Amino acid sequence: MGIKISGTGSYIPSEVSCNSNFAEHEFLDKNGAKFEFSNDIIIDKFKDITGIAERRYAKNHLNTSDLAYFAAERAIESAKVDPETLDYIIIAHNFGDVRHGTVQGDTLPSLAVRVKHSLGIKNPKCVAYDLIFGCPGWIEGVIQAQAFIKAGIAKKCLVVGAETLSRVVDKHDRDSMIYSDGAGAAIIEHTDEPGGILAHESATFAAEEAYFLFFGKSYNASIEEDTRYIKMHGRKIYEFAVTEVPKAMKSCLEKSGVAIEDLKKVFIHQANEKMDEAIIKRFYRAYKTPVPEGVMPMNIHKLGNSSVATIPTLFDMVINQQLENQKIQKGDIIMFASVGAGMNLNAIVYQC
Amino acid sequence: MGIKISGTGSYIPSEVSCNSNFAEHEFLDKNGAKFEFSNDIIIDKFKDITGIAERRYAKNHLNTSDLAYFAAERAIESAKVDPETLDYIIIAHNFGDVRHGTVQGDTLPSLAVRVKHSLGIKNPKCVAYDLIFGCPGWIEGVIQAQAFIKAGIAKKCLVVGAETLSRVVDKHDRDSMIYSDGAGAAIIEHTDEPGGILAHESATFAAEEAYFLFFGKSYNASIEEDTRYIKMHGRKIYEFAVTEVPKAMKSCLEKSGVAIEDLKKVFIHQANEKMDEAIIKRFYRAYKTPVPEGVMPMNIHKLGNSSVATIPTLFDMVINQQLENQKIQKGDIIMFASVGAGMNLNAIVYQC
Repeated sequence: MGIKISGTGSYIPSEVSCNSNFAEHEFLDKNGAKFEFSNDIIIDKFKDITGIAERRYAKNHLNTSDLAYFAAERAIESAKVDPETLDYIIIAHNFGDVRHGTVQGDTLPSLAVRVKHSLGIKNPKCVAYDLIFGCPGWIEGVIQAQAFIKAGIAKKCLVVGAETLSRVVDKHDRDSMIYSDGAGAAIIEHTDEPGGILAHESATFAAEEAYFLFFGKSYNASIEEDTRYIKMHGRKIYEFAVTEVPKAMKSCLEKSGVAIEDLKKVFIHQANEKMDEAIIKRFYRAYKTPVPEGVMPMNIHKLGNSSVATIPTLFDMVINQQLENQKIQKGDIIMFASVGAGMNLNAIVYQC
Repeated sequence: MGIKISGTGSYIPSEVSCNSNFAEHEFLDKNGAKFEFSNDIIIDKFKDITGIAERRYAKNHLNTSDLAYFAAERAIESAKVDPETLDYIIIAHNFGDVRHGTVQGDTLPSLAVRVKHSLGIKNPKCVAYDLIFGCPGWIEGVIQAQAFIKAGIAKKCLVVGAETLSRVVDKHDRDSMIYSDGAGAAIIEHTDEPGGILAHESATFAAEEAYFLFFGKSYNASIEEDTRYIKMHGRKIYEFAVTEVPKAMKSCLEKSGVAIEDLKKVFIHQANEKMDEAIIKRFYRAYKTPVPEGVMPMNIHKLGNSSVATIPTLFDMVINQQLENQKIQKGDIIMFASVGAGMNLNAIVYQC
């Protein structure tokens, strides 16, 4: 028995925000002090490290669950499945539906229920739930779908990662430039064909790492104290990720029995270009192998970091040949790997 | 192979709020109008229908994840497991950590990560995630734990349901009297003994039912418009629950192969006493059998409706003989059944 991804879909919001849009922002350090250098310098340095030139924001009237629904519809269409035959709808997110201009996240009902409602699925046996696992939430959803199929309680699952991070950012924090909105989805199903998911790895580091990403106050002390924003200890996350993610990837590849030279593509969570480059280098270094050209597709330059949505969106783009010089073919062995709030991380080795 | 509950724990907040505490509340109808009758009459009627005389509120400095941690610690102790051997920590909730006096829910990091952090578990292979499935979230967490064990990716899981509903209620809504705070937990593990989980049933009704429970404005129009509170169409929920829950219970019992007369106890989500009585009556009526005396333990009178926490708390109390005339013995066959926002519902038939 195999478990395969039979269809993918993504929704890339139409609003483009270039780095130049941040030129007039009042950036402050964590003590609330202004920087000694200009925003141009801040933005150039930001671009050098993260690779991000643009990011996408959802239109004001759309919420995370709408983005999830759009991506889900496309995945269902691409997999050519009857939505009434889905056994699970799993939506990975972090903050619920945060309406534009408000601070409360809405998870009543769950986003998965909203998506099921929008899809018009009547079958009550299609169980809809939300999963919170930080940025690696979409991969974790795929791992859970796999478990349900293996346990014999599901045959077809829809797994979506969707976020509107633009609504939980502190505009006075330079890190606000990283975050974007988006959604990616896939149908995971039982197959009699060879291939599919070959191995997975999943972990939660919750000692001091638990609060590397956290909900914190604005760097602008005049902002109402009770409102919290996404905050991170970037340096600590970087060090954690470049150490632990390559290890998890190696462990996953070993479990799969696949040789490093047979790995065609590695889809890493689009968090930060320099970090992703360091991860892939360390991963191949463990095999004393140079990093193959083009092995790591990237779309962070244009799309920023949309948390749970980056990997399914990137995968969908490569499948549909929307990224220059990037394609995958039937039989290719690929890897997904992610890291984020928790700190959680995971990886999957997959044969297309 | 069997899958059993090897330990339970609960945390009942120490702050008791009696119905008389609502005597001075300004209750409004959904159009913002005052009622023509006094609060005494409102409260008496409320008590007659729901059975609720008191409810518990968490102390101001405690959050949902703290309650979850206290219950988790007790479940671990009762199961006599080494916490470092847990494969999963699954926390079911609805709103994240809502600090007292604020409106934002905090799920960064997830509550499961916070609980893992508080438990001091170092093993990164202990994967921690949050599950949002409305009130039936704890049962759904047990079903997911069961799937992971069956799929061979876990042997021991901690499943917690925790909520501080007192922090998302509209004080002008009579329904605010229903909700309470609490946490219940269990360790689910693989066993070679007979019994354990015999069958489960799980469903999501997301047509018009999707918005039977929702996040809505205060009935007091002068309250800041952007703040949302837990709201429900009580009548519709009642009708839905008394129709669909007994059906799901019957389907679950049939899957298990257990005869109705062998069922010793039924633990129903403590949402509303009259509703639970109607559910159990309809369930037994389907078997043309009278409802056995004492088959349905209740603690709603003293504890109110703490969402995901009601069933694990009630089960823990019965196991520890903290409810008068209620006990279960090894070998007894019992059922759990829940219904809530989604509308989601589920049931489990379990042999102790």
